[in-house]
Amino acid sequence: MKSTDCIFCRIAAGDIPCAKLLETDEALAFLDVNPLTPGHALLIPKTHVERLDEMTGSLAGQVLRHLPSLARAVQQATGAPAYNILQNNGQLANQAVGHVHFHIIPRAPGDAFRFNWPAAQYAEGEMEAMRQKILAALE
Amino acid sequence: MKSTDCIFCRIAAGDIPCAKLLETDEALAFLDVNPLTPGHALLIPKTHVERLDEMTGSLAGQVLRHLPSLARAVQQATGAPAYNILQNNGQLANQAVGHVHFHIIPRAPGDAFRFNWPAAQYAEGEMEAMRQKILAALE
Repeated sequence: MKSTDCIFCRIAAGDIPCAKLLETDEALAFLDVNPLTPGHALLIPKTHVERLDEMTGSLAGQVLRHLPSLARAVQQATGAPAYNILQNNGQLANQAVGHVHFHIIPRAPGDAFRFNWPAAQYAEGEMEAMRQKILAALE
Repeated sequence: MKSTDCIFCRIAAGDIPCAKLLETDEALAFLDVNPLTPGHALLIPKTHVERLDEMTGSLAGQVLRHLPSLARAVQQATGAPAYNILQNNGQLANQAVGHVHFHIIPRAPGDAFRFNWPAAQYAEGEMEAMRQKILAALE
C-alpha cells in the first residue's frame, strides 16, 4: 500500500532522496531534514500507515526491532549522553506527517528541545475505573 | 535478570502492585501512577534493561509489538483525539526510572503536556557527514 500524496511513501519508494541509515523489507530509517538536534533520525514502516493504532502488532515488531541498534549508532556518532524516542499521533500531539514515524532525538546540555512534565495523581477510585475501561477496550 | 533496587523490576515480579493492563512472558503494561493525562500508560520489558540502546532487537520487537493494541485501547477508553509515544534515555532526556519504559500519553485540547519543536537545518555537507558517522557506527 502506498499513498502518492505522502512524502514518506515517496521517500520509501525512492522517488524522493533521503539520507538513508537502514533499510529492510518492512522498515526504513533516515535523517530528519529538519533536525531538533544534529543526528535526529526517523524510523518508519515502508507501508503507508497514518497512526500507530492502525498498525498490526506484527508490523510494529518488525519495524521497532531496529530501534535499539539505531539508538546505539546515533548515540555513538553524536556522543549525546541522552536521547528521546518520540512518536506523535494526531495534530494535537504534534504529528506533522501522516505516516507513522519514530523520532530518535539525541540530547545535549543546553539543547532547545524541551518538554514540561505536569505529573498529576488520580483521585480515589479513578485509576481502577480507567483500568477497567482500558481492559474492556483491549478485549 | 532482575534488579532488586528497581521499582519496575519489583512491579514486574509482583512485589509491588500495579494497575495492570497487559502481561506476556516478555512485556508488562500498566497505568502510570503519576499520569500526565488520565489513561497515561507504560509498556516495559519485564527483564531489567536500563536504556533502549542496551536492549536486543529481538526483545524490542517482542515488547513493542504490543504498542499498537495498547494505543488503540487507551484511545478508545479515554476518547483522546491524539496521543504521544515517548521513551526517555538518560537524565538529560527526562528518564526518571532506570528501566526502559514506553509512555503512551493521551492528549486532549488544553492539556498541560507540551513540548517545543525547535526544528533546524543542517549547513551544507553536514547532513551527509552525520550520515556517514552513523553508518560507520551501525556496522
